[in-house]
Amino acid sequence: MATKSAPDSTRRSERSRRAIYDAAMDLVTEVGYGKLTIEAIAARAGVGKQTIYRWWPSKGAVLLDAFLDLGAQATQEASDAAGHETTQYEIPDTGDLETDLKNVVRSTIDEFKNPKYDAPWRALAAEGMINPELSAEYVEKLLEPSLQLFVKRLEIAKEAGQVAPHVDPRIALELWSGPLAQRWLQRTGPLTHEYGDKLVEYALYGIAPR
Amino acid sequence: MATKSAPDSTRRSERSRRAIYDAAMDLVTEVGYGKLTIEAIAARAGVGKQTIYRWWPSKGAVLLDAFLDLGAQATQEASDAAGHETTQYEIPDTGDLETDLKNVVRSTIDEFKNPKYDAPWRALAAEGMINPELSAEYVEKLLEPSLQLFVKRLEIAKEAGQVAPHVDPRIALELWSGPLAQRWLQRTGPLTHEYGDKLVEYALYGIAPR
Repeated sequence: MATKSAPDSTRRSERSRRAIYDAAMDLVTEVGYGKLTIEAIAARAGVGKQTIYRWWPSKGAVLLDAFLDLGAQATQEASDAAGHETTQYEIPDTGDLETDLKNVVRSTIDEFKNPKYDAPWRALAAEGMINPELSAEYVEKLLEPSLQLFVKRLEIAKEAGQVAPHVDPRIALELWSGPLAQRWLQRTGPLTHEYGDKLVEYALYGIAPR
Repeated sequence: MATKSAPDSTRRSERSRRAIYDAAMDLVTEVGYGKLTIEAIAARAGVGKQTIYRWWPSKGAVLLDAFLDLGAQATQEASDAAGHETTQYEIPDTGDLETDLKNVVRSTIDEFKNPKYDAPWRALAAEGMINPELSAEYVEKLLEPSLQLFVKRLEIAKEAGQVAPHVDPRIALELWSGPLAQRWLQRTGPLTHEYGDKLVEYALYGIAPR
């Protein structure tokens, strides 16, 4: 993060990096990931292409860092708004697991539908599918931390007796994260709040009669 | 399907098509989807590249048809083995839904791990993610028909009182198909039979205490 005490050169490279992220995100939306080139990102960002090659090995790596930066910005904004450093985002605990999960799932569905991020996010996921190194970084830095928020919430629910003792929270969360990812990535059906609610209900209570 | 009464030209183009499918599948595994070209497929298959361009608009379309052909071959082989035309594959109904689902999920996990198909299948899925037209064809012809087998099995289970009346089978099946797709495509964790079993158990009985 650039701060008021950062030297000019740090602030300049901070600005360049953000310009590169914005250029990469916008260009994926405009021309598609297949036609995205480092040259075009450099031209749009107003930097030399060597600047990009110095920092990133591939266009997929630029996109991954762009999303990580968005996350860092969101945390920074939350800290600024709170007037102090915020701890990492947590899934709210109202004591009602079903409601808490439905709310997070609904927000996730809304995020999937944000047209600003749809094309670059898909591109990153698609690149990860055929590129194991990028995939490992994507999962470790971006996907797994967000899934761990569910693990934490499910552990709390377990202690409160709302999740059965034998259940593995890291697997349980996939009952909704998996279907959401599949509908989003593979376009197998509509992503609606009603659909998200049903996933949470089926996951909590099962599809066999109680 | 080529039959004994097919004219020579049909048998020849049947052979060319199969050669093109094999070449495309093998080349994806060898050089990666990013570096796969129509020219290289044509050279490996021993056909002119115009032959490929006449039949398919893109390398992704070749891969999709290659997988559809594999499915058709499997059906043909099953018919030949049975000595008569078989009906479409169905999920076995032993009367025990949990066991039947676990068996299919375990087979699916084994298929995901077949090294022959891993790279081309990932490539097709990845291409579909950023190519809506190919995605629509992939889902309609390849993915949805296999998911509908679960719908059918769940409808039978519903009539037998093993699935609750309010449950929508098309959504319920995603409780395991979604997580399997996510672990396979995004490499978020190991794909083991034990994992598959847990998904089925959580889906059937829920993660909340009974």
